Amino acid sequence: MGNSFGKLFTVTSFGESHGRCVGVTIDGCPAGLPITEAEIQREVDKRRPGTGVAATRRAEADKVEILAGVFNGFTTGAPIGLLIWNQDVASSDYERIRFLPRPGHADFTAFMKYGGFNDYRGGGRFSGRITAGFVMAGAIARKLLGLSEIEVLAHTIEIGGIKAKPMSLDEIRSNAGTNPLRCADPTAAEEMARLIEQVKSESDSVGGLIEGMALNVPAGLGEPVFDTLDGELAKALFAIPAVKGVEFGSGFRVGQQRGSENNDPFTVKNGKIVAVTNNAGGVLGGISTGMPVVVRVAVKPTPSIARTQATVNMESMADASLAVKGRHDVCIVPRAVAVVEAMLAVTLCDFALRAGVIPRIIK
Amino acid sequence: MGNSFGKLFTVTSFGESHGRCVGVTIDGCPAGLPITEAEIQREVDKRRPGTGVAATRRAEADKVEILAGVFNGFTTGAPIGLLIWNQDVASSDYERIRFLPRPGHADFTAFMKYGGFNDYRGGGRFSGRITAGFVMAGAIARKLLGLSEIEVLAHTIEIGGIKAKPMSLDEIRSNAGTNPLRCADPTAAEEMARLIEQVKSESDSVGGLIEGMALNVPAGLGEPVFDTLDGELAKALFAIPAVKGVEFGSGFRVGQQRGSENNDPFTVKNGKIVAVTNNAGGVLGGISTGMPVVVRVAVKPTPSIARTQATVNMESMADASLAVKGRHDVCIVPRAVAVVEAMLAVTLCDFALRAGVIPRIIK
Amino acid sequence: MGNSFGKLFTVTSFGESHGRCVGVTIDGCPAGLPITEAEIQREVDKRRPGTGVAATRRAEADKVEILAGVFNGFTTGAPIGLLIWNQDVASSDYERIRFLPRPGHADFTAFMKYGGFNDYRGGGRFSGRITAGFVMAGAIARKLLGLSEIEVLAHTIEIGGIKAKPMSLDEIRSNAGTNPLRCADPTAAEEMARLIEQVKSESDSVGGLIEGMALNVPAGLGEPVFDTLDGELAKALFAIPAVKGVEFGSGFRVGQQRGSENNDPFTVKNGKIVAVTNNAGGVLGGISTGMPVVVRVAVKPTPSIARTQATVNMESMADASLAVKGRHDVCIVPRAVAVVEAMLAVTLCDFALRAGVIPRIIK
Amino acid sequence: MGNSFGKLFTVTSFGESHGRCVGVTIDGCPAGLPITEAEIQREVDKRRPGTGVAATRRAEADKVEILAGVFNGFTTGAPIGLLIWNQDVASSDYERIRFLPRPGHADFTAFMKYGGFNDYRGGGRFSGRITAGFVMAGAIARKLLGLSEIEVLAHTIEIGGIKAKPMSLDEIRSNAGTNPLRCADPTAAEEMARLIEQVKSESDSVGGLIEGMALNVPAGLGEPVFDTLDGELAKALFAIPAVKGVEFGSGFRVGQQRGSENNDPFTVKNGKIVAVTNNAGGVLGGISTGMPVVVRVAVKPTPSIARTQATVNMESMADASLAVKGRHDVCIVPRAVAVVEAMLAVTLCDFALRAGVIPRIIK
Repeated sequence: MGNSFGKLFTVTSFGESHGRCVGVTIDGCPAGLPITEAEIQREVDKRRPGTGVAATRRAEADKVEILAGVFNGFTTGAPIGLLIWNQDVASSDYERIRFLPRPGHADFTAFMKYGGFNDYRGGGRFSGRITAGFVMAGAIARKLLGLSEIEVLAHTIEIGGIKAKPMSLDEIRSNAGTNPLRCADPTAAEEMARLIEQVKSESDSVGGLIEGMALNVPAGLGEPVFDTLDGELAKALFAIPAVKGVEFGSGFRVGQQRGSENNDPFTVKNGKIVAVTNNAGGVLGGISTGMPVVVRVAVKPTPSIARTQATVNMESMADASLAVKGRHDVCIVPRAVAVVEAMLAVTLCDFALRAGVIPRIIK
Repeated sequence: MGNSFGKLFTVTSFGESHGRCVGVTIDGCPAGLPITEAEIQREVDKRRPGTGVAATRRAEADKVEILAGVFNGFTTGAPIGLLIWNQDVASSDYERIRFLPRPGHADFTAFMKYGGFNDYRGGGRFSGRITAGFVMAGAIARKLLGLSEIEVLAHTIEIGGIKAKPMSLDEIRSNAGTNPLRCADPTAAEEMARLIEQVKSESDSVGGLIEGMALNVPAGLGEPVFDTLDGELAKALFAIPAVKGVEFGSGFRVGQQRGSENNDPFTVKNGKIVAVTNNAGGVLGGISTGMPVVVRVAVKPTPSIARTQATVNMESMADASLAVKGRHDVCIVPRAVAVVEAMLAVTLCDFALRAGVIPRIIK
Repeated sequence: MGNSFGKLFTVTSFGESHGRCVGVTIDGCPAGLPITEAEIQREVDKRRPGTGVAATRRAEADKVEILAGVFNGFTTGAPIGLLIWNQDVASSDYERIRFLPRPGHADFTAFMKYGGFNDYRGGGRFSGRITAGFVMAGAIARKLLGLSEIEVLAHTIEIGGIKAKPMSLDEIRSNAGTNPLRCADPTAAEEMARLIEQVKSESDSVGGLIEGMALNVPAGLGEPVFDTLDGELAKALFAIPAVKGVEFGSGFRVGQQRGSENNDPFTVKNGKIVAVTNNAGGVLGGISTGMPVVVRVAVKPTPSIARTQATVNMESMADASLAVKGRHDVCIVPRAVAVVEAMLAVTLCDFALRAGVIPRIIK
Repeated sequence: MGNSFGKLFTVTSFGESHGRCVGVTIDGCPAGLPITEAEIQREVDKRRPGTGVAATRRAEADKVEILAGVFNGFTTGAPIGLLIWNQDVASSDYERIRFLPRPGHADFTAFMKYGGFNDYRGGGRFSGRITAGFVMAGAIARKLLGLSEIEVLAHTIEIGGIKAKPMSLDEIRSNAGTNPLRCADPTAAEEMARLIEQVKSESDSVGGLIEGMALNVPAGLGEPVFDTLDGELAKALFAIPAVKGVEFGSGFRVGQQRGSENNDPFTVKNGKIVAVTNNAGGVLGGISTGMPVVVRVAVKPTPSIARTQATVNMESMADASLAVKGRHDVCIVPRAVAVVEAMLAVTLCDFALRAGVIPRIIK
């Protein structure tokens, strides 16, 4: 239960970190969209651990396979099946700590929820690896959104307290992809890299913030009062393991603000009604304003750290300790950037279909 | 579309600010729950504008009526219909500004989404008044949760930059209800009251933060990977107009933290596994840990202010200006506290039913 | 749970036979549809017991009220709330038989499902009266379908073994509304009336068949593989109390047929592909063919009969007997005709919205 | 859209007849159920074309693979992924008739719905082959139901007008599996076999009826008023290609019946309330009565026949003719028996989970 997202563009996730595969089905994709495994692969590769300091050493080929729903290079209107076979899986690392829940991980909650039947290897169903499936679905969604010139992008804006300077949209577009930190401010990116190196040497990990944006979203997407654009985006983003907060526009700063400064005045520009400022982050009343959708996401430090931590033995119910071995990212923020983009794309695609902005057959 | 929330405890909202009524239906409430209009009324009254400085002058009786689903004082298992008839509606205030979208309001987005057919009086479907329905549903949910000793509560922790001191759970329980600010720190509450008085004199409004908590939530509620406990709670909270951010536990502070400080170690206490700290805010991997669920919500300043603001005439497409007349809260945070509680209750109730924590028949 | 129908045109039913009201909310109706209480009333009146022999003597005004979602005569895009207050409710009839389940009724199953908390008066939630709400929703759906020239109609084709002759579409259109039996064959209608008179004199009841049709349905409506047009229609029709069978086109006769006689050959007519025959009943692979959708529905005899029947006392668990007093239709088939039309309309409306055949804003 | 079924036991179907695979994911299966590929294989094999006269000559290994959701031999609570790779696919047969819709098939409606982008090879998404996925899901559902002693079974009761004699439950259980016709009456089975042989020699096909039953279903399963047990079962059964009618208990015979003969009197037996007869087919008011659920399904003749039929060329829009080559069942009824069982199981499993009859963790 709970492994599907989206009303008209429905992504169903399956697979485990150390099982046979991770995959998704996508039900509701319009017919006639040209798509290839290579295009989806390109998105998945963005999420792949780099050679950089932030990254796990697990070397995954992560080769995308289309199982169903695409014929002669076009989507057919049938469910799309996408799969990545797991490789290079070192499960034996995990047998040892089966009953020792790693602090900050879902080991304990999964054990409680599923009575110990959960696949505990590498976090099983709760691993960040599951998000490779999200990114595959996001690749399809982005292509669909592109038909309406809707663009999603995300970038790292803070790691371990080091904040990126505010950058222009052009700078974000051109810089965020060029460094392994996915940070548009090159100076901050260097500092972040140094911090990560240091944190690694301390057998620790570090968290950060990601900003996501959706551009050219037409006014009118979103469904009041419960299936709001911001509410569904938030739900989608909380599906990314390690996300602890989501805010739009001025976000938590509104707690210090006056209405006169937070309200975005309207004006007419090129015959179109636009907001002069964007404190709303592109959403009013759960519906897009036509301004960029701007969302910030708080990503906690990787819970897997090599330091010794206090835990319990769930079998013997005795206090215990563990140091998490294995290959882990010191900071998952850079890899999560691609996942934030994917979740933005998937959610917007669903709303674009609800609004009829994307047609049922692509011609 | 989008006016229902919850999979097994499904709340459907209807009604408008200046229409005949606001109401909800609740489908999935177990049979056998004793409930009276008076009990629901008590929750709705908490949301009612007080006599305090923060409040609108609209005097609403807001009398709760049970239309269906309750028989001889018990729920029947059939959909529960709950209604409040609108009274004291001054619609003529709004005719004048029909084509002048109020900055910060959903007037513009609703116009775009519904082609101008939306009920524009008092924000229509986008009014905070709709949340009276949420609170009615929340009253039922709270009673159900109470059967399993699950308790929800919320309190104001910041208004216009004035922060409440951290208070103990007992203090929050006993203080938050005693002042119109719903703030557990009496000193801060007084400062907040003064600030609101001043902001009012400046024809302005002010935002703030609310903290919500759910206590005695058993470990294991929530559904990975998309219908997560935190994701669904976030979605539910973004349904409250004016909410711009939602965070759990350490929330946005994780951007500055190390794993070693953010991870919550486990220990055994009274034969139960518990976390020593609660940076997770009671949720790991989208599933409750058994620790208190702690969520903070950012509420923007009331967009309706008497100051003159720049807007446009959507009919003539000319720049325009307006000063919002009518009766409005200077700060909606205190009234939103009851709504945060309601949304917590409704969401948890749905998950408790999914997990079988609440039975299908109450005996 | 289970009181909502439709994905994009979502009807939620509430209310009880002898409670305060019966009602529906409709979420997903496009904005801009002109609609009045009088138009909905007209549909509801078709379901009203006539003065004819088949009818209950319960005199219900059944006055339709629009609670929400309509403003200045047009739908707003918000949920539509529709209500009929119950009047002329004689509940005391039912107290006496509270623990004596009427054979053929849901009294026993409701008691088992809801642990005896169900509203047992007049069948409560399981009364045919609930379908007044379906018809209100159907009235909106029909008006929406009418924008695309899609028409639904139904008529009685058999009562107690008396079969109507096959009639032309024009005859069905003009005759079915003119007699209280809703039968297009006037001779059969007279026979049916006589039979009902006789059955009544025998303190018995009688069943029958209804044929429903949808005309001008464009090819391509329906969603494989589970949300098929025929499957969703069947589900919708089984929501009508007393329906025991649903078949499309040749229906159960296919058990005797060969492929060569059952297959409908295609041909080109006026530049359009059409089927020469319509054994498929307008559906192939769960998708509309463009031919008339033809469905037949089996309606069982009214279970309420004045004859003494064997039952049990659910409290004392002793065998018992009862003769159902009160006012009941000898044959509910004629009244169910309007409900079949409503369910056809509601279901098709949902699919028309899914396919984009009906736009989100009516202009 | 439309490829998922079930609220708490959600089956999502994907794959095509001549694509790479057919598969399902199942979301909501409780954790702790022991299950092996071999057990699922056994169910799938029942659907496999036999060596008998009724069968297609396509030789498919149809080897079941578990992709996800099962760990150490038990379900984990995560989505279960099940797959069969397609083999022995002769696609070139279909290129030739790409624009020639086969009468009685979904070729035309799929073309219309998906703008010609549908995978047309062998019916693509509309092939009976998709039901192999249903049967895989059914295998899991049956095992779950078995925990509560709920049993589903189905058998052929009519082919081409040859009717099986009414047989006892024991006879059905022991006989239906022993002949390729899946008919519990051995004499009728022989006649049916002869008829099929004859029909085959005439290059024709033939339809029939299947009776499905669910035993030991406790009273109280089903959700009024829309998600009824009979309505959801009907929807599930119409997902089987070629099904044209569904009826419960007395079914279409109610059109000739009186209330006094159709009502099932209640009595007390072994301290339990039971119905003396079962004209209701185990369902009253959309809720199970505790009596056997009895449903009959009309299966049309295989539309693929070698005779020349009239059709059109959808490209040139000219009248045309075709004789369907390839390997096809003369009568799909026997193979559909396993699919009817699967759909019964899947639907009941969903309701059993809704009612809490099946727990969330199997211990």
